[in-house]
Amino acid sequence: MKIYNSSTAPNPRRVRIFLAEKGIQVPYEEVDIVNAVNRSAEFRRKNPMAAVPVLELDDGTCIAESVAICRYFEEIQPEPRLFGIDAKDRALVEMWNRRMEFAVLIPIADAFRQRHDFFKGRIRQVPEYAEAQRLNAEESLQWLDSELASRRFIAGDRFTIADITAMVAIDFGRVSKIAIKPEQKHLARWHGEVASRPSAKA
Amino acid sequence: MKIYNSSTAPNPRRVRIFLAEKGIQVPYEEVDIVNAVNRSAEFRRKNPMAAVPVLELDDGTCIAESVAICRYFEEIQPEPRLFGIDAKDRALVEMWNRRMEFAVLIPIADAFRQRHDFFKGRIRQVPEYAEAQRLNAEESLQWLDSELASRRFIAGDRFTIADITAMVAIDFGRVSKIAIKPEQKHLARWHGEVASRPSAKA
Repeated sequence: MKIYNSSTAPNPRRVRIFLAEKGIQVPYEEVDIVNAVNRSAEFRRKNPMAAVPVLELDDGTCIAESVAICRYFEEIQPEPRLFGIDAKDRALVEMWNRRMEFAVLIPIADAFRQRHDFFKGRIRQVPEYAEAQRLNAEESLQWLDSELASRRFIAGDRFTIADITAMVAIDFGRVSKIAIKPEQKHLARWHGEVASRPSAKA
Repeated sequence: MKIYNSSTAPNPRRVRIFLAEKGIQVPYEEVDIVNAVNRSAEFRRKNPMAAVPVLELDDGTCIAESVAICRYFEEIQPEPRLFGIDAKDRALVEMWNRRMEFAVLIPIADAFRQRHDFFKGRIRQVPEYAEAQRLNAEESLQWLDSELASRRFIAGDRFTIADITAMVAIDFGRVSKIAIKPEQKHLARWHGEVASRPSAKA
């Protein structure tokens, strides 16, 4: 198997951190997204969404979508459990991972995608929406700070995929000047802890 | 347990159809979203995202996010399997469900949310983005028609949660005049089949 990767995009980093936490090594093949190789007809046969990452299995099956790839590895190597430990916990981890996607990662990604030259001609850009999503993302970080006042990690007292999604999103905020504010002490405490795990360098 | 529901919003319908397919009955409590009861401080204690549906367990735990709720029921009553049957199939179902969310449901929802009076003062509306997402949704339906030329259901030869997401999204397109075109015969054939299942009335 191998993973089609981009070392600069946020979503492939989610998968790399997830695999580092599991101690799983998979060969990565860098896709030249700057030159739009991901938008070629050849790459679209692997993923019609034209996005990385994509996991290609030895039988040729291509699994796209970061969370689908992570879930595949959670099933074939359950420990350490990053999607929760029982039915209720797994539902709560899914809930928190989705909240981190819809309230943090997507707004932060839109703040970049909807106005940056990199996406000009690649998507229908609406710069006014970039600004709306930047404000939405800042509100989400303020809310997340209050959530983290009462627990160690995003989904409870264990590190999960929800922490990976949130950290990758917030780190990607750098390109849109979205950052944790000095007064958001709980968020800063959490970020300091997750960013110091060896997997964060993956 | 009970589910906080809205009989008019698309996401609660995903959960109702999923439970109908499983033959599971859970009491529904209607939330008056027209009068913004979902945005009250009391409801936000159940779901800070102020959205329905929410599953409240007997121990008081609140599980929000439609897919998290569905996954909880998949675990406590696996048959019929709507998230896939083994590790690879479950990854592919997750991939397809996410494609239906990101390429179909979210664009169709944005085409409504970003310009309709219902959301005025509730979210930061950008009407130009509503139009961009309407066009994105129409492109997605054209692509989905080509995908369905070669298989019976969205994720393969079995009905899954990805079919539920896609059908609910397309049916919700009605409010934004987004619909299957006469020439999209594969998409129309698929929609006719899934819409005729008894669960579609849930």
